[in-house]
Amino acid sequence: MLNDLENAYSEDMKNVDDAIRSLLATDNIKMQEMIDWQLKSSGKRLRPLLMVISSKFGNSQKNIYQFAAIIEIIHMASLIHDDVIDNSDIRRGRLSIQKKFGPKMAVYMGDYMIFKAFKNLSNSCFDADKNILDNVKYRKSVEASLNNSNKYMDLIENIMAGELGQYNSLYYTDVDEEIYIKNISGKTAALFKLACNIGTMETRCSTSVCEALDNYGRCIGLAFQIRDDVLDFTVEGHKDKPVFCDFANGIYTLPVIYALENPKYNKTIKDMAEEIRKGNDDNKIISELLNILEETRGLERAKGVLNSYCEEAIESIASLPDNIHKESLRILARSIRL
Amino acid sequence: MLNDLENAYSEDMKNVDDAIRSLLATDNIKMQEMIDWQLKSSGKRLRPLLMVISSKFGNSQKNIYQFAAIIEIIHMASLIHDDVIDNSDIRRGRLSIQKKFGPKMAVYMGDYMIFKAFKNLSNSCFDADKNILDNVKYRKSVEASLNNSNKYMDLIENIMAGELGQYNSLYYTDVDEEIYIKNISGKTAALFKLACNIGTMETRCSTSVCEALDNYGRCIGLAFQIRDDVLDFTVEGHKDKPVFCDFANGIYTLPVIYALENPKYNKTIKDMAEEIRKGNDDNKIISELLNILEETRGLERAKGVLNSYCEEAIESIASLPDNIHKESLRILARSIRL
Repeated sequence: MLNDLENAYSEDMKNVDDAIRSLLATDNIKMQEMIDWQLKSSGKRLRPLLMVISSKFGNSQKNIYQFAAIIEIIHMASLIHDDVIDNSDIRRGRLSIQKKFGPKMAVYMGDYMIFKAFKNLSNSCFDADKNILDNVKYRKSVEASLNNSNKYMDLIENIMAGELGQYNSLYYTDVDEEIYIKNISGKTAALFKLACNIGTMETRCSTSVCEALDNYGRCIGLAFQIRDDVLDFTVEGHKDKPVFCDFANGIYTLPVIYALENPKYNKTIKDMAEEIRKGNDDNKIISELLNILEETRGLERAKGVLNSYCEEAIESIASLPDNIHKESLRILARSIRL
Repeated sequence: MLNDLENAYSEDMKNVDDAIRSLLATDNIKMQEMIDWQLKSSGKRLRPLLMVISSKFGNSQKNIYQFAAIIEIIHMASLIHDDVIDNSDIRRGRLSIQKKFGPKMAVYMGDYMIFKAFKNLSNSCFDADKNILDNVKYRKSVEASLNNSNKYMDLIENIMAGELGQYNSLYYTDVDEEIYIKNISGKTAALFKLACNIGTMETRCSTSVCEALDNYGRCIGLAFQIRDDVLDFTVEGHKDKPVFCDFANGIYTLPVIYALENPKYNKTIKDMAEEIRKGNDDNKIISELLNILEETRGLERAKGVLNSYCEEAIESIASLPDNIHKESLRILARSIRL
């Protein structure tokens, strides 16, 4: 289903790719080599796609590709740093930047990409203003640019705080659904939301369209992260990383949280977590945990929540004009379901 | 000597510290704990000090503490990431962030600090404009803000590219003085230069004052880095890190470059570098290298270059008005000499 969308927006996505390339272009040979490596292993470009589709509900497409490139670069930088932190060798079926070029280069590369993204974010916000001759309009435009820039920056700040926030609950087996949703709201959902926000705000959509897509982005983001967390317990989800990666790293996601709610298994799971924390991550524990997740319907309930977020996403956009882009958003939401 | 300066500008530096604290303040308990830890092990605050002194030659002190805080935060973030990369346990006599809170938190913390710095950089550039009522003045002010913001961003980009640039010459034993100066110009000198640039530009110094302090900052930065590199070969320079840290990590600094110029020792040093690269960093090699650095006068020549950059720094500011701040800049330059 996602393939259909990729075809429908292939022209737009090519523009996004070009924008990413030109935004990151450098005359430092080593860096350019790293950038090329990173871009070859490009993922689904879901965040820019969301932004592009959102922008179709607005009036002027302006420099949306520039913004779409920025959001993808922020996302790529966070993956590069994640791979350093987790010492991951593989990313999207290829050697990770940290494995290929070493962790030093990977950390600096991520820093450089974050910087490039922010530099261009503030520039993009102001891009169109300089040529407005009318003073009142000019003043309004500058103020709007500042407001937008501040709004985007605040959202990005939440995302970064969210990345750190999840580590407050690391190895914390009393984590509950509320904390979990709060963590993934900050970490993943906020970036999807931001993609929709920029898509609608930069193209001057009406408030109701902005709000509809704001909630759509949030729901899609939550669904996407729960999907990722569910797949961590299944074989199909593991081309790249070992199974039970989250649990092994002290991150207790929704399926585990539901299993922990069952008094019969609560202590057993906590003991397993403690064992793994100590370094005893043998296969017996892993298969036992999987049994418990089946028994307590932890995985099933998590899938249910993920699917209901997809439904909510679709409901959020009910009031949007009926057109192919609205249909695309529906297709995108459905493609995330499990 | 540096202590005298710290006393003379203690009020300013207290304002800088307050600005750093309020700029980084967060309601995330864990992050606040990390920030407090980082701020307790504060260094010499040389970059903000340079900015503060530079600003004294201008007209309006405006929000210079805000900018000084930003530049120190960028510096701190790069140290936090350096410690992750080098797996360093100690920073300024205390546990490093990565040792105390783990490398994951340290990477994200650095990212967050970089972001906070940039967010506030663009905000600070625009801070004073909103209240200008005259349209022509407003327009000029917006354009000046954009220009300054872009100039600062470009300089920061150079710094980040410089960090990466030095890794182009990692384990490269044919590195020469020109490449070395280019590397440290990007890496260290650029941030000192930026401190002076912001100090003078934000306080509307005349072009000649801006230029004088631009070169002063560059020279001080070069001198500071060469000093650091020379001290890497001496015991006094090693409260925190092992002796010969750079050489062991494949970074061949000025003293080694000069020693390599001597045909008698060129091959020996290259063989040593190769041995160490393979992991044989025994004490025999280290003491032999130190002998060669003595024999070839590598350390002495490097000290000579460092001292002449201090002289050039002092000469750069000859045309500035004679006042206590000019004297402070002289004291600062002299304090770096070896």
